Amino acid sequence: MLSLLLLLSISLTSPSSAADFCVGDPTGPTSPAGSSCRKESTVASSDFVFSGLSVPGNTDNIIKAAVTPAFEPLFPAVNGLGISAARLDLAPGGVIPLHTHPAASEILFVTRGRIRAGFISSANTPYDATLKKGDVMVFPQGLLHYQVNAGGVPAVAIVSFSSPSPGLQITDFVLFANNISTALLQKVSFLDAAQIKKLKGVLGGTG
Amino acid sequence: MLSLLLLLSISLTSPSSAADFCVGDPTGPTSPAGSSCRKESTVASSDFVFSGLSVPGNTDNIIKAAVTPAFEPLFPAVNGLGISAARLDLAPGGVIPLHTHPAASEILFVTRGRIRAGFISSANTPYDATLKKGDVMVFPQGLLHYQVNAGGVPAVAIVSFSSPSPGLQITDFVLFANNISTALLQKVSFLDAAQIKKLKGVLGGTG
Amino acid sequence: MLSLLLLLSISLTSPSSAADFCVGDPTGPTSPAGSSCRKESTVASSDFVFSGLSVPGNTDNIIKAAVTPAFEPLFPAVNGLGISAARLDLAPGGVIPLHTHPAASEILFVTRGRIRAGFISSANTPYDATLKKGDVMVFPQGLLHYQVNAGGVPAVAIVSFSSPSPGLQITDFVLFANNISTALLQKVSFLDAAQIKKLKGVLGGTG
Amino acid sequence: MLSLLLLLSISLTSPSSAADFCVGDPTGPTSPAGSSCRKESTVASSDFVFSGLSVPGNTDNIIKAAVTPAFEPLFPAVNGLGISAARLDLAPGGVIPLHTHPAASEILFVTRGRIRAGFISSANTPYDATLKKGDVMVFPQGLLHYQVNAGGVPAVAIVSFSSPSPGLQITDFVLFANNISTALLQKVSFLDAAQIKKLKGVLGGTG
Amino acid sequence: MLSLLLLLSISLTSPSSAADFCVGDPTGPTSPAGSSCRKESTVASSDFVFSGLSVPGNTDNIIKAAVTPAFEPLFPAVNGLGISAARLDLAPGGVIPLHTHPAASEILFVTRGRIRAGFISSANTPYDATLKKGDVMVFPQGLLHYQVNAGGVPAVAIVSFSSPSPGLQITDFVLFANNISTALLQKVSFLDAAQIKKLKGVLGGTG
Amino acid sequence: MLSLLLLLSISLTSPSSAADFCVGDPTGPTSPAGSSCRKESTVASSDFVFSGLSVPGNTDNIIKAAVTPAFEPLFPAVNGLGISAARLDLAPGGVIPLHTHPAASEILFVTRGRIRAGFISSANTPYDATLKKGDVMVFPQGLLHYQVNAGGVPAVAIVSFSSPSPGLQITDFVLFANNISTALLQKVSFLDAAQIKKLKGVLGGTG
Repeated sequence: MLSLLLLLSISLTSPSSAADFCVGDPTGPTSPAGSSCRKESTVASSDFVFSGLSVPGNTDNIIKAAVTPAFEPLFPAVNGLGISAARLDLAPGGVIPLHTHPAASEILFVTRGRIRAGFISSANTPYDATLKKGDVMVFPQGLLHYQVNAGGVPAVAIVSFSSPSPGLQITDFVLFANNISTALLQKVSFLDAAQIKKLKGVLGGTG
Repeated sequence: MLSLLLLLSISLTSPSSAADFCVGDPTGPTSPAGSSCRKESTVASSDFVFSGLSVPGNTDNIIKAAVTPAFEPLFPAVNGLGISAARLDLAPGGVIPLHTHPAASEILFVTRGRIRAGFISSANTPYDATLKKGDVMVFPQGLLHYQVNAGGVPAVAIVSFSSPSPGLQITDFVLFANNISTALLQKVSFLDAAQIKKLKGVLGGTG
Repeated sequence: MLSLLLLLSISLTSPSSAADFCVGDPTGPTSPAGSSCRKESTVASSDFVFSGLSVPGNTDNIIKAAVTPAFEPLFPAVNGLGISAARLDLAPGGVIPLHTHPAASEILFVTRGRIRAGFISSANTPYDATLKKGDVMVFPQGLLHYQVNAGGVPAVAIVSFSSPSPGLQITDFVLFANNISTALLQKVSFLDAAQIKKLKGVLGGTG
Repeated sequence: MLSLLLLLSISLTSPSSAADFCVGDPTGPTSPAGSSCRKESTVASSDFVFSGLSVPGNTDNIIKAAVTPAFEPLFPAVNGLGISAARLDLAPGGVIPLHTHPAASEILFVTRGRIRAGFISSANTPYDATLKKGDVMVFPQGLLHYQVNAGGVPAVAIVSFSSPSPGLQITDFVLFANNISTALLQKVSFLDAAQIKKLKGVLGGTG
Repeated sequence: MLSLLLLLSISLTSPSSAADFCVGDPTGPTSPAGSSCRKESTVASSDFVFSGLSVPGNTDNIIKAAVTPAFEPLFPAVNGLGISAARLDLAPGGVIPLHTHPAASEILFVTRGRIRAGFISSANTPYDATLKKGDVMVFPQGLLHYQVNAGGVPAVAIVSFSSPSPGLQITDFVLFANNISTALLQKVSFLDAAQIKKLKGVLGGTG
Repeated sequence: MLSLLLLLSISLTSPSSAADFCVGDPTGPTSPAGSSCRKESTVASSDFVFSGLSVPGNTDNIIKAAVTPAFEPLFPAVNGLGISAARLDLAPGGVIPLHTHPAASEILFVTRGRIRAGFISSANTPYDATLKKGDVMVFPQGLLHYQVNAGGVPAVAIVSFSSPSPGLQITDFVLFANNISTALLQKVSFLDAAQIKKLKGVLGGTG
C-alpha cells in the first residue's frame, strides 16, 4: 500500500514543480519573464541564501554611500518570485541621489542610524520623512526618490523590491555619466552647459 | 574616488538590465511571455525604431484595405513591453471586416479621412461611431469590431495594442478561407451552404 | 485580387501566432512563465486533447483516493493558458488530505457520489460543505483544503485550476514523507515525537 | 500564555484576509478587477457552493443546446479568483455555435456522450477533435471555437475558464440578433443581404 | 423556440459584461485596478470616442511643446483596458524634456515633421534616433526619455501607452517646479545652488 | 509663458495620479485588487511611513516568538504596490511554526542572532539553512516554511512580501485552534485523536 501512495506522491508533485520556483540559469536564454530555470535536481538549499548583504558596502566614494543588491542574476533564487532585496550604506554625509526603479515598488527598513528619504509623485508633490531605526517607508513604483544620511553616524537600511529585477536609473548618471552630448542635454534638461560640463567632469561623462 | 563611483554604477546597473527591455531574438526559444531576449550588448538604437508604417499598405485587394503590423516578431523591440502598433489603410470603399484581437485592447487614431468603426459587446450591444481626422476610439479586448472608410477619399489610422502580439482573427477568414468543411460550418454558423460555398470561392477556402 | 488578399492574410496572422497558444516543449528551457513553446508547425489537433482523465485513478492505497492531473507538462497544451484540470477519485472512505496549491485557485465539480469538502481561511475560519453530484465548490488560492468521500459509494470530481502548473503540497507528506528530522518537526509543528515517528513509518519518511 | 498566542493569531490573520477571497457584493461598485467584496463576517460556507450546474439546461431551442454559467455575479465566490465554470448540454443535433470568450481560456471535460469540438488559430488553422466521455480539450483565450453533439444521445460537458467573468460572444448573435443594419453587416461580413435577412428573421435581429 | 434562444442569449451574456469594459465613473471610488465602472446601461458609443487629440496643443510656452493626454479619467473608456494615448506637438525648437512614465511603456508614431527621440537604459546606455514622418519608436517602461523637434517645422506625434494611467514625471519639474528646498536638491542632485535657483525661477519652484 | 507651462504641468499630471499610489481607505469598498484609494489631497508624507516594526514583538507566549506585520490595512500605503513587510522576533527557543503565505513570496533578512529557516517544495524536498546576521533567504510563494531561533540569544528578522496582503496560514492553527471536529481532522490529517485533542487544548481549539 505504501508504495502506491509514494507513486501517487510522485505523480502528483513532479509535474508541478515548475510553479514552485525557478532558480535562474545564467547560461540559458532570458525571456520577458526572467531567466531560464535551472533543473530542479541541481538546486540546493544554499541557492536560496544570499550572504552578500552581511558586509557593509564601501562608502569611500563621491556619494559616501553604497547599494549592495540581491537582485537577479546575482541572487538567482529570486528569479520569477516577484521580490528582491538590497542593502544601503550611508556614511555620515552620504546620499543615494535621485533615482527610480523602472519596474518595482520599494519598501525600506532602517537598521541603523537616521535616514531622510522621500519621493515625488506624478502630481509633482514631494513626500519626505526622516526615519529612525526601525522605521519603514514605501516608495511607489517608478517614481523619483532619494535617501540621505540624517545623522552624524553611519546609517544602514534594508530595502526590498516588488520585482526580482527592479532596475535602477540614477538621474545624475543619465545626465552626467555617459556620452550624451552637452548640447542635447541642455535641450532636454534646461541645465546650463557649464553645469553639465562640470558634473560630467566629476561623474566621468563625455560629450 | 571617481573609479569607486563608476564601479558602484556598474555593479548596480548590470544586474537589472533584463527588466528594462527584451528585444526579441528570433533564433531563440519562445515562452508564454514572449520571445527570448537578445544580448543587450548587441542591441542598438535602431532596434527600437520601425519604419514599416511610413509606407501605405497595398489596398488593391478585395477589401480595398491593408493592415501593416508593427508586432513582435516583425518589430522585435516591443517584445515584453505590453504594446505594439499597426497602420490601417482604407481606400474609398475599403473595409477591415469583423475581427478580434484575442489578446489585446486596441486604440485607434485617425490620421486621414473618415472612418466608421464599431465593436459589439458580450451583451450583444453594438457601439458604433464615425470618426474624423484626429479622433480616437478604443476597442476592448477580444470583442468583434470593424473599420470602414466613411468618406470618398483614402483613410488612414494608426492603431496601438495592449500586447506585443495582439493576434488577429478575421471572422470571414475563419469561415471562408480555410479547409473547414461546409457541412461543419453550416452547423456552427447557421449559414446556408450556398452562401458558404460562394464565399469560400471568393476567399480561397476549400472543403 | 485573391492572391493579394491571401498575402494580406498571411502577413497579418503569422506574426501574431505566438499569442494564441504555446504548447509546451519538454526539451526546451523553462522560464518563470512556463515551458518553451513548440513550433506551431508541429502542433496538431490532438495536442489540445487529453484522455488521461477518462480512466479512474487507482484508489487501492492508504488514502483510498487518487488524483490524476492534466497539468503542464503532462498536458503540454495548457502551458501559458492559465488553466489546467485534474480528476479526483475517492473510494468509500477515501480522502484527499489537507493540502494547498501554491499557485492557483481551484473549482470542483462532482460527477459522481457525495463529497465533503472544505477550506480554512487566513483568519482560521473553516468553510465546509457536503456536495452532491452536480455541485460546484471553489477553493481560493493557496489555502489549506480537503475532500472526503461522504457517501458509501465511489465519488468522482473534476477540478480545474487557475494555472497550468498549480502545484500541490500535501501537509502530511511535508510532515511525514521526507527526511526532515523528527526533532525539527517537533519544533515547527508542536506534534509529539511519537506521533511523528508513527506517521513517518506509515508514509515512508525518515529522520 | 494561551491568550497571548490567540492575540497573536488575531493580529496576524485579520489584516490579511482580503487576500484570501472576495465574494462579490452585487450592491457595491465594480472595478476593472471585479466586484466589490462582501464583508468577510457575512460570508458563509454556502457562498462557496453553487448547485446550478446540477440541473440539465433546457435544450428545447433552436440550437438544441444550453450553456449554464457559474460565473460572477451569478456565483459571486469566484470573484477575483481567476476561475469559473459552466455546464454545456447538447441534445442530439445540438450545437454551441462559433463563439469566443474575450477574456479567458477554456478547458472542457466531457461527462456524457460524444462532442466534436474545435477552435481556429490566428494563423487560420483549424484544430478539431471528437471527444468521448472523460476527454479533456483546451481552447486558448479569445479564439473562435465550437462544440457539436457528435453522438445520437445527449452530451454533457463541464467547462472551466481562466477568469471569473470570461465573457461570451456568439458570432451569429453579433451578426443576426441585434439591430446592426443589414447594409453595414454586408460590408463588414461579405455575407449576402438575403442571408443576413433570413438569419435576422430566425434569431430576432432587426435592421 | 425563438424566445427560448433569446432567453439563452440573455442569461449567457448579462453576467459577463463586466469583463468587456469598465468605463470609468469619476464619482465612484478608485481601486488599485482603476476607477469604478459606470453601469453598462448608461454607456453609449460616444463614450468610446475621444476628440481631444484632433486639436494641436498650445506650444506657446517655455518648452515650445504640448502634450495632450487621452488618459483615464479624461478619457474614461480606457479604464481597465491597459492602453491609452496622447498627442505631442513640438513647435520648431520644441522639446519634451527628460521624463518617465512610471507605469507604462510607450510607442510613438510621427505624423508630421521630424523628431529626435531617445531613452537611457538602467545600464546608462543612451538609445537615440531621429525619426521622420511615419516612423515608430518604442520606449520601455519607467526609463527616462525625451523628444525634440529635429526639423524647422512643427512636428506632431501620436503616442500610446501600455496603461490607461501611465503617469508622467518630468525631471525638471521634480527639481525646479515644486517646494523642495535648494539645500536638499543640492544633496540629491549634485547640482549647484545657483543652477537650482535659476531654474526654480524659470519653472516656478520655491524653497 | 510661465503660467502656460504650469497649466501644462497640471493638465499632464493630474489625470495620472491614480497610477502612482493608492493609499488604502478603510471606510471604502474593497475589490480583488485591494482597498479603495484615499483622495490624493488627503495623503501626507507620514502615510508612507510605518513605525510599528521598531518595537520588538512580545515573545512571552507559547511559541516564544512574534510576528509584527506592516501589511494592508495596518499600513495602508502599501495597498496596490505589490509589497509589504513584517518583523519577526524569536526569543531563545522561539519558533515561527510551519505556515504559508497564500498570495506572496517572502524574502527574509536577519538583523540579529541566528535563525534556522526552511521551506518544502511541491516535490516534497526540504530546503533548510541556518542564517547568521546579514543573511538573506527567499521563500517561494505558497510553500510551507518555518523559522527557528538557532542561537542562545534573541533573533530578529525583517521580512518582505511580494503582496500588500500576503495572508498567513499557520498549519497548527488550522489543525488545533478552531472548531473543526476531531473526527474530521483525523480523516484529513491522519493524526491520532489523542494528539489532536492534546493540541486543541493547548491552542484553544474546540470540537
